[in-house]
Amino acid sequence: MLSIILVEPQLGRNIGSVARAMLNFGLTDLRLVKPRDGWPNPDASSTAAGADSILDNVKLYPSVQEATADLNRTFATTAREHDVIKRVHSPESAIKALYKGWVQEEKLGVLFGNERCGLTSESLSFCEALVKIPSNTNFPSLNLSHAVTIFAYEWRKCHHPCQGDILRTGHTKVAQKRDLMGLFEHLESELDRTSFLSHVEKRPAMVKNIRNMLQRAQLTEQEIRTFRGIITSLVGQRKNISK
Amino acid sequence: MLSIILVEPQLGRNIGSVARAMLNFGLTDLRLVKPRDGWPNPDASSTAAGADSILDNVKLYPSVQEATADLNRTFATTAREHDVIKRVHSPESAIKALYKGWVQEEKLGVLFGNERCGLTSESLSFCEALVKIPSNTNFPSLNLSHAVTIFAYEWRKCHHPCQGDILRTGHTKVAQKRDLMGLFEHLESELDRTSFLSHVEKRPAMVKNIRNMLQRAQLTEQEIRTFRGIITSLVGQRKNISK
Repeated sequence: MLSIILVEPQLGRNIGSVARAMLNFGLTDLRLVKPRDGWPNPDASSTAAGADSILDNVKLYPSVQEATADLNRTFATTAREHDVIKRVHSPESAIKALYKGWVQEEKLGVLFGNERCGLTSESLSFCEALVKIPSNTNFPSLNLSHAVTIFAYEWRKCHHPCQGDILRTGHTKVAQKRDLMGLFEHLESELDRTSFLSHVEKRPAMVKNIRNMLQRAQLTEQEIRTFRGIITSLVGQRKNISK
Repeated sequence: MLSIILVEPQLGRNIGSVARAMLNFGLTDLRLVKPRDGWPNPDASSTAAGADSILDNVKLYPSVQEATADLNRTFATTAREHDVIKRVHSPESAIKALYKGWVQEEKLGVLFGNERCGLTSESLSFCEALVKIPSNTNFPSLNLSHAVTIFAYEWRKCHHPCQGDILRTGHTKVAQKRDLMGLFEHLESELDRTSFLSHVEKRPAMVKNIRNMLQRAQLTEQEIRTFRGIITSLVGQRKNISK
C-alpha cells in the first residue's frame, strides 16, 4: 500500500483535488499532518468530485513522526535544493523503488509539503530519500494536487503496465495481405484504364508508392470493403460523366 | 513544439490550472476552442499561479479543424471507449511518438475535451490516434488540469531525461573504501574491548553483518569522521562511567 501524506496542507480545495487524483489511480490512504484549517474541511468535497471514500477515511496526525510510524519506507518530495546528504529520485525511479517494497509487503509513503514552502528539513529527516519532479527551473512550483497526480500516475503504471500504441479495431480486424493485394490490384487496374499509370517507366515506382502509402494505414477487413466501394463509386461516376 | 488544445473547456479555474501545469514543464502554446465562458476569463488567473505568459498568449479558435490546421500530428485524449478504428496510446507511448515528430520539426498537438463529456467523435476524426490515461475503472474521470499535467510531465521526461536515484553529497563525497575500513576496524577494536565480539565462533559473522549494514548507507568522508567521533564519544562515556 502506498500512502499519501500531506504535511500541514493549507487549502481544503487542494486536499479534495488530491483525493480525486488518488482515487483516479487506485490509491486510497490519505494522511494529513496538522492541516491548517482543521479537518474535516467542507472545501475539500467541492473538488473531490466524488472521491468521498478517500475524504471519509482520512487519517489525522499531529506530527510527521506519528504519520510515518507504521510505514517501512518513506520518500519526501521537494522542489528546493536541501543541503542534506540523501538519495534523490525522479518520480519514476522513486515509485519503482517503492513498488519493489510493495512486492515485499512493505508499507510505503510519499510526503508532500504545504503549498507555500514545501517540506522542512526536519520532515526530510524522517524519510530515506528525496524525490524531485523534473520541472522548468524558471517556474518549478507545482500545484499540490498536480504533484500527487504524477506519483499516483506512476504508481498505476507500475501496478498495471499497459501496452501503448495498439490499433483498436472493434468488431473487425486488420485485413489479411491477400485482401490488401485485392484492393491494390483493383485500384491499379482502374488507374491503368484512366491512364493515371500509363507512363511505362514510372509505373513500377508509382505502384510501389501507392502501396506503401496504403500499407501505413493498416486497413481492416471492413475498410478494405469500404475502399473498394469508393473506387467502384468513383469509376461509376466517371463512366456516367463520359456517357 | 507541443500544443495543448482544450476543446470547449468550461471552467476558467481549470484553464488557469492547465496553464500552470504547462509552464511547470516548459510547454507554452495553449489553444482554446470555443471556451464556454468566453475569453479572457478572470477566473483563470487565480489558479495560474503566475503562469500569465501562457494565458496572455492563448490562441482562440472557432473549431477543432481551425485549431489543428497548422499542426502535423494531433492526438486525442479520451476516457471513454469510442467505437472507432484508431490507434490507442498510453500517455507515455503517445508522447514518445510525438517526440519523434518534434525531432523531425513537426508541429504537434494533444486535444482534451471538456470537463463534462470529453471529446466528441467528430473531434476525434481530426486526430490520428487516441490516448487513454490508465486509471481506476470505477473512478476514471480526471480533472482536466490533472490530465494535462500527465502529458506535460511525460513531455518533460522525453526532453530532459534525468537520472533517478542519485546520492546527493553536497561538498563532501562518498568515502573511499580505505576510510570505511578504518571506521570498521576502529569500531571492531572497541567492540572487542567491551566483549561485544567476544564469541570466537560468532565473531566473523557478526563483523560481516555490521560491515554489510554500514556499507548500505554509502557513508561520505564527512560522515565517516562523524561516526568515528560518535564511537570515541561513547567509549569516553563508558570510561568515565567505569571510573
